Amino acid sequence: MSIEDIRAEVCDLHRHLTRWGLVTWTAGNVSARVPGKDLLVIKPSGVEYDSLTAKSMVVCDLDGNLVDGEHSPSSDTASHAYVYRHMPEVNGVVHTHSPYATAWAARGEPIPCSITAMADEFGGDIPIGPFALIGSDDIGRGIVETLRGSRSPAVLMRQHGPFTIGPTAKAAVKAAVMCEDVARTLHLARQLGPVDRLPATAVDSLFDRYQNVYGQPLMEGQ
Amino acid sequence: MSIEDIRAEVCDLHRHLTRWGLVTWTAGNVSARVPGKDLLVIKPSGVEYDSLTAKSMVVCDLDGNLVDGEHSPSSDTASHAYVYRHMPEVNGVVHTHSPYATAWAARGEPIPCSITAMADEFGGDIPIGPFALIGSDDIGRGIVETLRGSRSPAVLMRQHGPFTIGPTAKAAVKAAVMCEDVARTLHLARQLGPVDRLPATAVDSLFDRYQNVYGQPLMEGQ
Amino acid sequence: MSIEDIRAEVCDLHRHLTRWGLVTWTAGNVSARVPGKDLLVIKPSGVEYDSLTAKSMVVCDLDGNLVDGEHSPSSDTASHAYVYRHMPEVNGVVHTHSPYATAWAARGEPIPCSITAMADEFGGDIPIGPFALIGSDDIGRGIVETLRGSRSPAVLMRQHGPFTIGPTAKAAVKAAVMCEDVARTLHLARQLGPVDRLPATAVDSLFDRYQNVYGQPLMEGQ
Amino acid sequence: MSIEDIRAEVCDLHRHLTRWGLVTWTAGNVSARVPGKDLLVIKPSGVEYDSLTAKSMVVCDLDGNLVDGEHSPSSDTASHAYVYRHMPEVNGVVHTHSPYATAWAARGEPIPCSITAMADEFGGDIPIGPFALIGSDDIGRGIVETLRGSRSPAVLMRQHGPFTIGPTAKAAVKAAVMCEDVARTLHLARQLGPVDRLPATAVDSLFDRYQNVYGQPLMEGQ
Repeated sequence: MSIEDIRAEVCDLHRHLTRWGLVTWTAGNVSARVPGKDLLVIKPSGVEYDSLTAKSMVVCDLDGNLVDGEHSPSSDTASHAYVYRHMPEVNGVVHTHSPYATAWAARGEPIPCSITAMADEFGGDIPIGPFALIGSDDIGRGIVETLRGSRSPAVLMRQHGPFTIGPTAKAAVKAAVMCEDVARTLHLARQLGPVDRLPATAVDSLFDRYQNVYGQPLMEGQ
Repeated sequence: MSIEDIRAEVCDLHRHLTRWGLVTWTAGNVSARVPGKDLLVIKPSGVEYDSLTAKSMVVCDLDGNLVDGEHSPSSDTASHAYVYRHMPEVNGVVHTHSPYATAWAARGEPIPCSITAMADEFGGDIPIGPFALIGSDDIGRGIVETLRGSRSPAVLMRQHGPFTIGPTAKAAVKAAVMCEDVARTLHLARQLGPVDRLPATAVDSLFDRYQNVYGQPLMEGQ
Repeated sequence: MSIEDIRAEVCDLHRHLTRWGLVTWTAGNVSARVPGKDLLVIKPSGVEYDSLTAKSMVVCDLDGNLVDGEHSPSSDTASHAYVYRHMPEVNGVVHTHSPYATAWAARGEPIPCSITAMADEFGGDIPIGPFALIGSDDIGRGIVETLRGSRSPAVLMRQHGPFTIGPTAKAAVKAAVMCEDVARTLHLARQLGPVDRLPATAVDSLFDRYQNVYGQPLMEGQ
Repeated sequence: MSIEDIRAEVCDLHRHLTRWGLVTWTAGNVSARVPGKDLLVIKPSGVEYDSLTAKSMVVCDLDGNLVDGEHSPSSDTASHAYVYRHMPEVNGVVHTHSPYATAWAARGEPIPCSITAMADEFGGDIPIGPFALIGSDDIGRGIVETLRGSRSPAVLMRQHGPFTIGPTAKAAVKAAVMCEDVARTLHLARQLGPVDRLPATAVDSLFDRYQNVYGQPLMEGQ
């Protein structure tokens, strides 16, 4: 894929953030690694979703410096770049302030793995990452330290919101969408009483099956 | 109806799942029995709703084996097939992870029949089915054992989500839509205080009237 | 207005019920009195909102008997008709199972007049009407007994849902929309703590101003 | 910009109120100061959002008197005018009854600054203003007394709803959208447990960065 193709793909993936209600105004961003190069493509900072075009996507190096683009990159670029530098298996990163996931993040409470859809996608609880201020490597380091070795592609950064990762940008987008979905369902469940976590053996069985059997052979983004 | 007609109908019915907010990403599925044959038509696995076409619908036998189709069938096909094998009066099955219904399922709490709309459609509480793992007949058996002899066309499989059945695929879709609707209303009601169940005589009267008088004569899907 | 004009208007008003999320599947209905005649126009029973046409609207007399139409009238026709017989100032009636209003109805708890928007439109609490079964005059009588002499154009029929009335069908639709809006806001407010009712003098002042000053001179439906 | 340009801009900005779910029926309004003149442009009273046109926007002086327009101005015009008279740095004002923000207003409880997105936009808690009746300067005075010297562009008028201000009308619209967003997220967070406020030093750091670094150079409405 050329950088122009990746720009088009990253631009297009942002429609899922609005489609599934994950973002408000200009918040949130999707990025993709440029295969074989120390580059990433990311949303410009503070541009409304309806105005995004492939051309407006910004190319940065993996230190977060602008390489090509007419706009300033997302203010979260340094955090995305840190993830790409330290997790070579990650090719897509998504950040939102989706309301239910951010509510769990605000309390600093992991989402308990209590329903089969959550075991399928996350293989366990969705963990809490540390509180970190923008403007240094602290957010990126918190994401990497929380997700390295975890089966969950999502971390809820404390008093901030979810970051998700994936082997493709689309997989990271899917993780962001499903993170909000299970955050909402477990929020609703917990409002009226306690919920039990699924047994570990059931979680393992569901996660293995979903990752290996679900979907179509060679389907993009799964 | 030819199998191609049924494929078109099953494909089209999926739009109700997105229209009424019952599904996220690729989760959820509708199936229909092929009249007079030991076959069913069901959604392909892991395909996005916007990409569904009549042709992409999959034909399986009632053991869940692929008979015709370009895609792998839904990973829930075995559960649908079990229902068709054991409940000859059922011609449609729907499965979703709709958020309010799944929240009741996560707690393992039946939805109490407390409002007239619920008596109309469900004739009583919406019951909880057992926890069961995908990959055997356990989910199908749990659905059938819970719904056989019940007036409710919906069961909330514990820590999983709702399955609905109907004499037509459209009726099963309607039951899925109404299940989420009453799950939401009773969730909201219960958040601020207790709710009483309706008296059994009132439930019987409402259910009888709705099933026999409501709607138009010979209307499709009612 | 001819009956055909009223059919077109009643059909068109139903789009507000879907636009504002008041109805699910085929539930809910709008009716209008035919000026100068003992007739009403109402939605057909069990027809989906996307399929409504002016021609499919049903004309009934004020005992709820079918006078003209290709479909059976709404199963709530007798209740609408009772209201028109007993409240000559009412020219429109709306019924929904909108989720927040129905949640208050399920608990049998009036919505307390605690915010200015509610004083504007309802002039006080939204009251609870009796539990009544469909199939006799009980629902209509419950609506009339609760709303006669009340400033509120909305009543929450216990364990059933809201009915609203108005000097025009559009005003009744507006009342249904605003009823759900304030039911939601007060639900949210009450979830995190108590709310005070507004002082009676403030309610009177707001109601008087809104009914007499708000909007445009001679605006339709206000 | 000519007054006709401002009319077109104010009309267009109202679409954000419907897009983000801040308004119901005809409630809510946006105004803009006419640069260099003692005039403002505001929504007409009680007109539905789908019917708004640039031409239907109303021009008033800063005492709230009609100067030019075919309709009566919003019943909140006097409050907007009071803000423009007393806060020369304000060029846009927005008022809604958005549900989550109004729920905090109904309880008279400030929204605690507990997540980074709130520190970014509001620089602290969103404060509560006094209860005030429409029809005098009381609402305008309450807004000005609460927001003068505050970093927050939003105030929750007690038992009424949010008013937001900005250096441009679009900035005030953005503040209204973000106010509802954080009101919702903190509502959800608080439903399941306590949330801590961010430390004051973190709030200061986030606010400074967001106001000075976020977005594009010279971007409109930021």
